Amino acid sequence: MSRTEIGIGLVGSGFMGRCHANAFRSVAGLFDVPEVPRLHMIADATPELAERAAAALGFAHATGDWSELVADPGVEIVAITAPNVLHAPIAFAAIAAGKTIYCEKPLSTTARTALEMTEAAEAAGIVTLVGFNFLRNPMIRLARDMIAGGEIGEVTGFRGRHAENYMADPDQPHSFRTDPAGGGALADIGSHILSMARYLLGPMTEVLGDCRTLYPTRPTAPGHETRAPVEVDDMTHALVRFESGVSGSIEANWAATGRTMDLSWEITGTKGALAFSQENMNELLFFSDTVAGRGFTRVEAGPRHAPYGNFCPAPGHHLGFNDLKVIEVAQLLDAHATGRPATPDFREAWEVQKTVEAIQSSSVARGWVRV
Amino acid sequence: MSRTEIGIGLVGSGFMGRCHANAFRSVAGLFDVPEVPRLHMIADATPELAERAAAALGFAHATGDWSELVADPGVEIVAITAPNVLHAPIAFAAIAAGKTIYCEKPLSTTARTALEMTEAAEAAGIVTLVGFNFLRNPMIRLARDMIAGGEIGEVTGFRGRHAENYMADPDQPHSFRTDPAGGGALADIGSHILSMARYLLGPMTEVLGDCRTLYPTRPTAPGHETRAPVEVDDMTHALVRFESGVSGSIEANWAATGRTMDLSWEITGTKGALAFSQENMNELLFFSDTVAGRGFTRVEAGPRHAPYGNFCPAPGHHLGFNDLKVIEVAQLLDAHATGRPATPDFREAWEVQKTVEAIQSSSVARGWVRV
Amino acid sequence: MSRTEIGIGLVGSGFMGRCHANAFRSVAGLFDVPEVPRLHMIADATPELAERAAAALGFAHATGDWSELVADPGVEIVAITAPNVLHAPIAFAAIAAGKTIYCEKPLSTTARTALEMTEAAEAAGIVTLVGFNFLRNPMIRLARDMIAGGEIGEVTGFRGRHAENYMADPDQPHSFRTDPAGGGALADIGSHILSMARYLLGPMTEVLGDCRTLYPTRPTAPGHETRAPVEVDDMTHALVRFESGVSGSIEANWAATGRTMDLSWEITGTKGALAFSQENMNELLFFSDTVAGRGFTRVEAGPRHAPYGNFCPAPGHHLGFNDLKVIEVAQLLDAHATGRPATPDFREAWEVQKTVEAIQSSSVARGWVRV
Amino acid sequence: MSRTEIGIGLVGSGFMGRCHANAFRSVAGLFDVPEVPRLHMIADATPELAERAAAALGFAHATGDWSELVADPGVEIVAITAPNVLHAPIAFAAIAAGKTIYCEKPLSTTARTALEMTEAAEAAGIVTLVGFNFLRNPMIRLARDMIAGGEIGEVTGFRGRHAENYMADPDQPHSFRTDPAGGGALADIGSHILSMARYLLGPMTEVLGDCRTLYPTRPTAPGHETRAPVEVDDMTHALVRFESGVSGSIEANWAATGRTMDLSWEITGTKGALAFSQENMNELLFFSDTVAGRGFTRVEAGPRHAPYGNFCPAPGHHLGFNDLKVIEVAQLLDAHATGRPATPDFREAWEVQKTVEAIQSSSVARGWVRV
Repeated sequence: MSRTEIGIGLVGSGFMGRCHANAFRSVAGLFDVPEVPRLHMIADATPELAERAAAALGFAHATGDWSELVADPGVEIVAITAPNVLHAPIAFAAIAAGKTIYCEKPLSTTARTALEMTEAAEAAGIVTLVGFNFLRNPMIRLARDMIAGGEIGEVTGFRGRHAENYMADPDQPHSFRTDPAGGGALADIGSHILSMARYLLGPMTEVLGDCRTLYPTRPTAPGHETRAPVEVDDMTHALVRFESGVSGSIEANWAATGRTMDLSWEITGTKGALAFSQENMNELLFFSDTVAGRGFTRVEAGPRHAPYGNFCPAPGHHLGFNDLKVIEVAQLLDAHATGRPATPDFREAWEVQKTVEAIQSSSVARGWVRV
Repeated sequence: MSRTEIGIGLVGSGFMGRCHANAFRSVAGLFDVPEVPRLHMIADATPELAERAAAALGFAHATGDWSELVADPGVEIVAITAPNVLHAPIAFAAIAAGKTIYCEKPLSTTARTALEMTEAAEAAGIVTLVGFNFLRNPMIRLARDMIAGGEIGEVTGFRGRHAENYMADPDQPHSFRTDPAGGGALADIGSHILSMARYLLGPMTEVLGDCRTLYPTRPTAPGHETRAPVEVDDMTHALVRFESGVSGSIEANWAATGRTMDLSWEITGTKGALAFSQENMNELLFFSDTVAGRGFTRVEAGPRHAPYGNFCPAPGHHLGFNDLKVIEVAQLLDAHATGRPATPDFREAWEVQKTVEAIQSSSVARGWVRV
Repeated sequence: MSRTEIGIGLVGSGFMGRCHANAFRSVAGLFDVPEVPRLHMIADATPELAERAAAALGFAHATGDWSELVADPGVEIVAITAPNVLHAPIAFAAIAAGKTIYCEKPLSTTARTALEMTEAAEAAGIVTLVGFNFLRNPMIRLARDMIAGGEIGEVTGFRGRHAENYMADPDQPHSFRTDPAGGGALADIGSHILSMARYLLGPMTEVLGDCRTLYPTRPTAPGHETRAPVEVDDMTHALVRFESGVSGSIEANWAATGRTMDLSWEITGTKGALAFSQENMNELLFFSDTVAGRGFTRVEAGPRHAPYGNFCPAPGHHLGFNDLKVIEVAQLLDAHATGRPATPDFREAWEVQKTVEAIQSSSVARGWVRV
Repeated sequence: MSRTEIGIGLVGSGFMGRCHANAFRSVAGLFDVPEVPRLHMIADATPELAERAAAALGFAHATGDWSELVADPGVEIVAITAPNVLHAPIAFAAIAAGKTIYCEKPLSTTARTALEMTEAAEAAGIVTLVGFNFLRNPMIRLARDMIAGGEIGEVTGFRGRHAENYMADPDQPHSFRTDPAGGGALADIGSHILSMARYLLGPMTEVLGDCRTLYPTRPTAPGHETRAPVEVDDMTHALVRFESGVSGSIEANWAATGRTMDLSWEITGTKGALAFSQENMNELLFFSDTVAGRGFTRVEAGPRHAPYGNFCPAPGHHLGFNDLKVIEVAQLLDAHATGRPATPDFREAWEVQKTVEAIQSSSVARGWVRV
């Protein structure tokens, strides 16, 4: 094997930590990456947890202290899947150490900190990438290309939603998700549809939201009878205006009974339309007014939609969620090797977070707010 | 035939006029109506047009003067499908003549006039019905019954849309639809999703809309090169709050490329959810959290969903759009015979119109407006 | 009204009788028919039933004796919705009386009798039409036009099914449907998919079926505890070869739990494909290989698909089942007035019945049978 | 890392070879496997190809001679993704060497050889697994569990299909796929729906097929103008009878324009039904007659459907095709470690092949054939 290796340090071993580990492990067999990831070290809350995660996920070393991981000379890329409040300190340490950073969203718990992280990383010339994994879907890239190529004419309207049901149970307890610092449905999953809207249509400049807390209290912890007030939104509906002049609406909802992944949108243009739902992540619905009397066409993911072909040479063999993370890591490795900025980088993640906070502010102010 | 007859006077013979005629003609064979409609007289813009319509639609008499129709003693029900600006004068005449009124939506071009019509009709004890035909769908009635029966728990959110493409072409000329008095996408089709939202969830008390004119000019008439400014919305996104506390969003869009009848909504509750689209008007999607791990169930229209059984004794035999109008007319005949108020009556139509105007005002004011 | 009238005599007032009555009543307001139907007389099993049906459905006269109806000079078209065993005697009488005949499917209980009826009608120059209503769907006509126009290239394969659940309950009692003379799933609903296959792709010349009785006994009558053997099929799978050389498969199933109207097919050609299900009767799925990387396009019923426009000038307003019957009656009236043969006439219905019987024979013979 | 390693030898580096490599690489981070795969050696047609594949896929050693791989003491599992004609010789060598065998389908080019391989492997006590990857889908396992648990009552009918379009172009040249030894649509993809039918409903005992060659000649090789006759089927329709008495139909079609992965089926039972399509591989449609008036429910893949949870702790995050291969490898490693038979093993693959050949024979004989 002529390819050189690159040392990975992963902080966190939960849902996203496992996804990262799997992606680092798989990527070199699927993509012609410049360097092959070596699972060097994993950090977790305690040495014991870290040891166990290292064994399960195949890392060579383990530590209960993330700063040790950041400092380790064998670690060239720091992957951050720790609780949100730790994103900033870990990132600042990694920036100081000159390491490439791969951080889960949200970048931080406030837009202000996210900006500080962005500026520090940029000042230090650090390559950064933030894990808005749904953007890696070849069908999303296809949608952006089709819009840019004028296939639906000039865009006139947008309608987006990210609705799931994981907090629909009022007895679902408090967690980092309900922490006023960075928590709530809008920040947690609304950020996905916001980042996708930006990816497809550019920045939003004005927003007006209605943030609602559906369940005013939740148990303080799993199994606890004590309940504490909820200070974040369970559901937000918002109107948005894009810099391009396009207007639309966005919904974030983590109490959407019946929905497990309704990350969906419809974009209307003067000559056609596109519609997508992550529930059918391997297809894009496309309408073109070039043939009268026709409705939407189902465009199925296939090798012509890069990088689908890295996973399979034939259409009809669907990509899954974990594959999106592999694509993300391939892009990370490319950016690390070439120094070309990856996207979404810290700055883009900050823009998303600013939009989240603008919507929150507009709900309090009960009026339009500029982002 | 032992059933007595009832004389119908129809004003207008366009799209909706034909629908009315067909419904009056069909209803007695499908419903056990108290009185059998007799197609007595039709009025149109000129005597010639009226004669032709009478021949085509099976009316015994024709007139170019609607006031003659209203005054005719053989007319007991006045059906108004004339241009919107004529709704009020015809209705006032019919109220004065003590006739039952069946009026197409919108009731009038302004909420103010609609209220005057409402008060006049109520003062005179006139039975009124307004043609929000989509409410007649057995699946919509089923949805309301299921919500009322608690099958989705307490309602938490609403998301509705009526999007079509009939004005998507910027060269589609001006017409009554673009008349600032009562025109625009919100008034024309947004009123359908607003009336349905009210039917299912009760009144909206606060609204905030973003009304957009996508095509600033349109030809003054079919085939004309001269263009005149458009002063109404092509697309409106709005946030709404219901009296019940539920919040949601609504979109009206008549320039929605690719969409011919996206009158659709999703209602989320604490224990389940319902989703509907007029594109699949014979089904209702229902989610209940009573069985873990299950998603939405397709409930198909069938004889158990009254009045489907009036059309067919077996499930799987779909109702069509015109059937909704037959159901509407059956309700009208019942109200006429019993004096029981029909719904939506003039008052309800006024409430819808008020909501439309409140959204329009909120767009100008750029802030929340009480309905 | 300048149009002349034509006297209708309807035998039977069940599900199909009501459909016929509704269609005769509605057609003149929707189609520019040469003559306006006059509901002259209805016949039923007893005078009392007939009287009641006349009142409910709007017929001027009633009789308990169908031969009186056939003989009545006011009856120009005899519509037969009586039990299957009566189709032949009523038709022979109507042929003798020189009346146009509109008969529900199956034409008769055996192909042999169907042929006799066909030959008698043809010899007498009688206009005949048989009620395979699903063929009247504009989307089916569109499919035939697209195939004939080469839009999917040369047809290579067919896959069709008519599955419903109305006999899925083993305690559903015996009725005319389970009568060995003309009964069974294949004859009852399989005939629909067979007639549609013939309409779209031409005659089948060889067949091989596997006819299965799933429930060996059923109650002798509703509410009865006594059970009698079932001698007809509940489910049939068959292979078919068309005269054109195309091969395919067909299923008929009236015990298909979960299905209320799965009358569906997919036709594959060298350059494209079409797919249809009566569950979504207002759409046709169309694939063309002219644009690489695209999947099926949803073609929605609209005014460009005659005679949709007779029902509504705008797309998105769906036709329903009863509308198909109106289209059928419009064609009947046209054939009656012009003498042009309608389709499917008696001969075509006999061809369908021959195909049914060939499949039944092939199941017994356990080998291919020529139709 | 306390887990021991196990040496993998992979023969072939095409579509399936890459899938195997990826699965071996990923599995230990997703499943708690008894031994962690070590990518020891890869064999390909030439040393150069093998070297290149080793570099791309991460194998330590490479060889142009598969017998060297089989003999290598560092190889404990031999994974066979070589051309079909090589399956038997490689497998016999691996059996002789006492190695566990993971072989792609079809097991061999004839059922006779497949049986010899089966008997040899069984005699030697070799663990075998054949790559019918679609069976690994948690939703397929769920379907089997639901059927076994009586959730749809007694099964009454089956309808299955595997249709793709990869040979729809008549200029698609000859390849191993069109080799009369083991080629054709039925053997190539029909085997998938046959194996799935067996997995869900048990063995088929009688079959009757109609095998068709749609394109009588194809180019002898890519870019060649010379054409040679095609001796295998492009499309097969078949009737089947299961040992249980259930009857049904099966279609295999590799010239199905518009279809990229229509591996689909519907199973009807006395109390419910199940329907599945690989086009929506993360869902299963379930109908139960326990609630009247309801249709099919969409059951979405989630953590409750093992082993989905190994990939993601939350529902709504879809599995992809490559994940099925990871599940397959996890099962393989478990079987290797425990000696428990995996499924489908060689014997099961032989049963599938026997069924394929019985259908082919029945087409020639034009009559039912016992499997």
